[in-house]
Amino acid sequence: MTYCLGILLESGFVVAGDSRTTAGVDQISTFKKLVLFEVPGERVMALLSAGNLATTQSVVSLIRQRWGDPNAQGNLAVSLTMFDAALAVGDVLREVITRDGPYVDASASLLLAGQIAGESPRLFLIYPAGNFIEATLETPFLQIGETKYGKPVLDRVVSPLMDLDTAAKLALVSMDSTVRSNLSVAPPIHLLCYRRDSFASDVQITVEANDPYMTEISQAYGAGIVRLVADLPNPGWVR
Amino acid sequence: MTYCLGILLESGFVVAGDSRTTAGVDQISTFKKLVLFEVPGERVMALLSAGNLATTQSVVSLIRQRWGDPNAQGNLAVSLTMFDAALAVGDVLREVITRDGPYVDASASLLLAGQIAGESPRLFLIYPAGNFIEATLETPFLQIGETKYGKPVLDRVVSPLMDLDTAAKLALVSMDSTVRSNLSVAPPIHLLCYRRDSFASDVQITVEANDPYMTEISQAYGAGIVRLVADLPNPGWVR
Repeated sequence: MTYCLGILLESGFVVAGDSRTTAGVDQISTFKKLVLFEVPGERVMALLSAGNLATTQSVVSLIRQRWGDPNAQGNLAVSLTMFDAALAVGDVLREVITRDGPYVDASASLLLAGQIAGESPRLFLIYPAGNFIEATLETPFLQIGETKYGKPVLDRVVSPLMDLDTAAKLALVSMDSTVRSNLSVAPPIHLLCYRRDSFASDVQITVEANDPYMTEISQAYGAGIVRLVADLPNPGWVR
Repeated sequence: MTYCLGILLESGFVVAGDSRTTAGVDQISTFKKLVLFEVPGERVMALLSAGNLATTQSVVSLIRQRWGDPNAQGNLAVSLTMFDAALAVGDVLREVITRDGPYVDASASLLLAGQIAGESPRLFLIYPAGNFIEATLETPFLQIGETKYGKPVLDRVVSPLMDLDTAAKLALVSMDSTVRSNLSVAPPIHLLCYRRDSFASDVQITVEANDPYMTEISQAYGAGIVRLVADLPNPGWVR
């Protein structure tokens, strides 16, 4: 399994993904699920993946091979908009699933976040069928993989008006809730905080299992939740 | 879908279940998932169910029919221990699934919480196979149905030393997290707060959709989580 999420903000976006891949509990490995494609000063794209690892690695390899190739379909270096980039990524995903699907469950989902000069930052979720949806002001976050454990805190806290700091903390709390509950989601966690119009992927963070900051916010959040529940008004009907 | 949970405490137990049943989004109904069996002053048992409604209703009907029948197997009125009661409920579940299983996916899971004079309160999760596990001091809560959304808050807050008030609030927060995220889990929520050695099911509560207390704790909890995330130490690496 895997857990990846993206939060779209007025001030940019935050994306985060774990690193665990599993083929049964006795075969676990570490693969980064977050890859970046960029032309500094002009475009930054982050691609995160969940599902069949052979599929998602193929998709990433094909996008890399075609990057900058003027004859290639799916050359994200020249996509005019993030919508066009999402279309191209969906096409590559379809190509790989068409190739491998007859032999294996090659299903995979992707998150694509990015900004191309001339547009605002955008965030897409690309389904295994290659079609996709886009985050909006009403629903500014999208998730793939093991999405349920980390969703309640997002539902309650997320806002497109959050600053990047708060969104980064929220992403880490959502990730922490998932890691605690599902063995198939595990650090290192990779995170990109992208500031609107920076056109640079400067703030890439890798959070290892015993990262002191992650430990600090996990403990502070846990202790805060315990206090919060205790401080809720008592029901009055307990005897 | 359904969400039911039980929390075992030194001071008793709290169980809660929603009321939604679905057969597709265009066919939803309200059925209470929490039923009680008791001999006041001597035994109290709460049974909560998730899965095929025909199966769980059959299980409850058979347990009711056999209650007090000296010739019936599965007469919970005379079970010597809660372990024996869980065995009997598992047998009834196997009987129904054996009967209906060849014709339909008759799968169902059950929670059984209760106390019989001479024992401490106990809490069991009965699997569709009829076997079961029991809550312990290390893992004092058990869940069935749509368990994931409501688990992170339980993981962080639950303790067998909580008082009944706190456990009731925690159960409602866990239920609220699930209701917010999954349309197939919905009020009214039924809740039993059982105080150890009371041998009475006095505190049975029904929380309707617009219950003022539920609204109050949902809003207070939501606002508290927003503050909590904002107040976490900032990462320092965001530029």
